Amino acid sequence: MNSLKDQFTQHLRILQSEICQGLEQEDGKAEFISDVWERQGGGGGDSRVISRGDVFEKGGVNISVVHGDLSPQAAQQLNVHGKSFFACGLSLVIHPFNPFVPTVHANWRYFELYDENGLPVDQWFGGGTDLTPYYLFEEDATYFHSVQKKCCDGFDTALYRKFKEQCDNYFSNHHRGEERRGIGGIFFDHCREDAQHDLNFWKRFTEANGKVFLDGYLPIVTRRKTTSFADKHKYWQEIRRGRYVEFNLIHDRGTLFGIRTNGRTESILMSLPPTVRFDYNDIPATGSEEEKLMNVLMHPKQWLNDK
Amino acid sequence: MNSLKDQFTQHLRILQSEICQGLEQEDGKAEFISDVWERQGGGGGDSRVISRGDVFEKGGVNISVVHGDLSPQAAQQLNVHGKSFFACGLSLVIHPFNPFVPTVHANWRYFELYDENGLPVDQWFGGGTDLTPYYLFEEDATYFHSVQKKCCDGFDTALYRKFKEQCDNYFSNHHRGEERRGIGGIFFDHCREDAQHDLNFWKRFTEANGKVFLDGYLPIVTRRKTTSFADKHKYWQEIRRGRYVEFNLIHDRGTLFGIRTNGRTESILMSLPPTVRFDYNDIPATGSEEEKLMNVLMHPKQWLNDK
Repeated sequence: MNSLKDQFTQHLRILQSEICQGLEQEDGKAEFISDVWERQGGGGGDSRVISRGDVFEKGGVNISVVHGDLSPQAAQQLNVHGKSFFACGLSLVIHPFNPFVPTVHANWRYFELYDENGLPVDQWFGGGTDLTPYYLFEEDATYFHSVQKKCCDGFDTALYRKFKEQCDNYFSNHHRGEERRGIGGIFFDHCREDAQHDLNFWKRFTEANGKVFLDGYLPIVTRRKTTSFADKHKYWQEIRRGRYVEFNLIHDRGTLFGIRTNGRTESILMSLPPTVRFDYNDIPATGSEEEKLMNVLMHPKQWLNDK
Repeated sequence: MNSLKDQFTQHLRILQSEICQGLEQEDGKAEFISDVWERQGGGGGDSRVISRGDVFEKGGVNISVVHGDLSPQAAQQLNVHGKSFFACGLSLVIHPFNPFVPTVHANWRYFELYDENGLPVDQWFGGGTDLTPYYLFEEDATYFHSVQKKCCDGFDTALYRKFKEQCDNYFSNHHRGEERRGIGGIFFDHCREDAQHDLNFWKRFTEANGKVFLDGYLPIVTRRKTTSFADKHKYWQEIRRGRYVEFNLIHDRGTLFGIRTNGRTESILMSLPPTVRFDYNDIPATGSEEEKLMNVLMHPKQWLNDK
């Protein structure tokens, strides 16, 4: 029987192909290009990148399966103890062209740590999916969250509320008074064996969350991708994309960990949007659609009546 | 007689007005708008911002004069010890529209630290000026460096070489194999009283470097601002601006210090370029003008024959 890490890696490879295929079909024009790369210290990855599609302006669906010695710097960054590690994950970011179609991000990962004898000392799963709209359609937000909740509820009805809150707390531009990057989703990390769940529970949950990704995102794309828009909508999208850049480069742990441990820069930074604007002190007009979005970014909502 | 910090603050205020005036004159259309702000913990600033000019697409010439308690976090970030602090500085970044006109950055600052009794325990000057062209004109790079060298040589002929090297080392995207942000200039920091120089020497030097700023930059702007350009030149400028964003948000100590100590976000991030592109794995064609620039960014040159 294959080890847990082999099983999960195999799952990620299949998932990567399924997601790329689903997105290509939705786009109808562009195709993912694959860049297979090797890591000097051990392992490598497969970066699949799409650009200049009819629907998707830029995006990446990347796998990395890496192992090797853990530098003291990297151990500190991760806040863990261990001599060597194994990590595999799938990271995706999709930036649509039409400002009425939201950007989406997802990541699912598994980590193992070993002592000086190569014996496992720690292992955990992490991941999640979150949505970044430029204009707020409540039905899209509610739909997206309902897919995430349904996935969580199939495992433990306590999970959605906890992981939804963690998502709102994590994807936040702290330097802008806790302005969230988007309308959230779920975010989970360091899911280890505990009193209620064994490691296999978290493996199955993380796999399940990957499998519902297209179901949570594509119906929203289909609904919005043909909506006509004006220059001012594109302008606002590019302003908001600036905040996406700020979050990813200043706060995102995955990005900073990758960069500080000599990860493959182009694969890490494929998450950055294709065209971006930074204006000084841009503030939406009172009562505008842009302000409506800002309100939910500053004050995250419960999208589902699940009290 | 005024204290050293009052004198330097006064110098910065006059310099701010002179620089804004010189840039407005060069632009011929846009004017700086002043945003005066207060800092909750003590002090405040005057952010002067220009946008949508005929020559300058976006820019800021900001002063801050702040004081207050030094949080343990901020002390660690600065790698200093002290209970409270005074800091004043002028920071400027100018992003021209025409891709043949280089972006320029400069900063001049003074810092004082006090113990629990409010007695000074440390003080130093820092600053510098550096140029970020999108296309390389050797005569511009040489001219820019010659102004910086002349300024340095008026104080100590050992300074230029040292501060030029520090500039190349500092403004570098380490995560891209030491790809420099631009063609450098000078960078100096923690200039304290030492065996050769008293604090007043560094004050006069820092003031002098501010006073030659326009002389180093405007002749280059004048020479390039009417050069006609094509979409592909603008495209490349926006790709390179992406690297500017990467440096400022991932590596720049001043930006990160400001953000982590609850500085005024809009004033800190005025440094970000107005329009930016992030393409996956953009590599200039062999023999192109774009590659010519890359070569000097990867391998900084001695622009002056001063061996």
